[in-house]
Amino acid sequence: MEQYLPQFESALSIDCVIFGFDAGELKVLLIERNAEPFKDWYALPGFLVKQDEGVDEAAERILYELTGLRDLHMEQFHTFGDVDRHPQGRVITVAYYALIRINGQKELRPVTDYAKAAFWHPVNDLPKLGFDHSRIFSTGFNKLRRRLSYQPIAFELLPEKFTLTQLQQLYEAILNKKLDKRNFRKKMLSYGFLKELDEKQKNVSYRAAKLYKFDRRKYTKIFQNELNLDK
Amino acid sequence: MEQYLPQFESALSIDCVIFGFDAGELKVLLIERNAEPFKDWYALPGFLVKQDEGVDEAAERILYELTGLRDLHMEQFHTFGDVDRHPQGRVITVAYYALIRINGQKELRPVTDYAKAAFWHPVNDLPKLGFDHSRIFSTGFNKLRRRLSYQPIAFELLPEKFTLTQLQQLYEAILNKKLDKRNFRKKMLSYGFLKELDEKQKNVSYRAAKLYKFDRRKYTKIFQNELNLDK
Repeated sequence: MEQYLPQFESALSIDCVIFGFDAGELKVLLIERNAEPFKDWYALPGFLVKQDEGVDEAAERILYELTGLRDLHMEQFHTFGDVDRHPQGRVITVAYYALIRINGQKELRPVTDYAKAAFWHPVNDLPKLGFDHSRIFSTGFNKLRRRLSYQPIAFELLPEKFTLTQLQQLYEAILNKKLDKRNFRKKMLSYGFLKELDEKQKNVSYRAAKLYKFDRRKYTKIFQNELNLDK
Repeated sequence: MEQYLPQFESALSIDCVIFGFDAGELKVLLIERNAEPFKDWYALPGFLVKQDEGVDEAAERILYELTGLRDLHMEQFHTFGDVDRHPQGRVITVAYYALIRINGQKELRPVTDYAKAAFWHPVNDLPKLGFDHSRIFSTGFNKLRRRLSYQPIAFELLPEKFTLTQLQQLYEAILNKKLDKRNFRKKMLSYGFLKELDEKQKNVSYRAAKLYKFDRRKYTKIFQNELNLDK
């Protein structure tokens, strides 16, 4: 413990795992890289933090430069600091994640030429990713799964008004398994946090289904404070 | 985005927020520093990561060197990367946290002379800490509070067998407020995850109270899978 600062030369980077849901599929935001190492590979949107930039600030800038998206509510979920994770030197990466409604997001377009393209890719069929990004993705996906049971994340991915089929598809995509339709509906409706609207789907070629809204206050009351004892 | 690695000189450090519970009080593990900057100040156990060391590995080593504790189950909770957080240069710190039973832990003793002493300090009366450690502590404490409602953390801090008074004291310490004794007991017992033992406290000068054990399987069934829909 005798060394002084800087103890070693290292770089700090950010990687973003952005989940979106669209047309019954759970997707993650990827870029096609345009620089070495891993040139032409697919990867999570990520790059180096600047000297004069805090990590949260860097995360916003990097996501914007590589994909054109901004003003997302991103949250740190893990920092990856294995010694050999980057082929060019020691790079510690802080991973952020966010959930967004793909629907209504503007077009993806990298602002720098460091990425050739940015695009949504289904999570259940991911290509090989550069660096240790497959591991970073998995860690983020596991976090998403765990949170599904105690946070209202499903409703951040769905449009404001949604059908029970859409809700079930989202749960199935995150849990990666088929759920029984009848049980799913019964259980979901039993909680009381879904508000049935006097409205049906529009512009569908099949029989229009009822639309629902999410009642965040009720959800919070039911789950978040389950063990909150001052009531 | 044109620079190459290393993009800038920075150091990486680890800081540990270790919570313990003892004699009705929630405590956090501190050290008294023996080196500049902040020499003689109190601080969280923390130091620089080595060049050839992964972050998880570094966290274990650093906690051991500064306090003598090892084999804790530590978990990352946040990475602090503000530009000016360290007076000697850019240092990004990865913060870890753990919950332990103070009772039964061996004596605290720094292994390096970088710390003069290591000790448990009540969380509700913390002294001024070096660096941004007050902020790191608060972030960890908030995380602990949030987790209290959906993870069985209270039972990691209590002895294996505990009284309802001890359990209530722990909840009060984490939530930082008084709870009604009758409501607390009624609610806690209603869940069914507390197993009443055929055993009472020993060696107490007042009327011995019943001891309880925590039934983790029942807890998990009740809370973790609340929204797990494949049952």
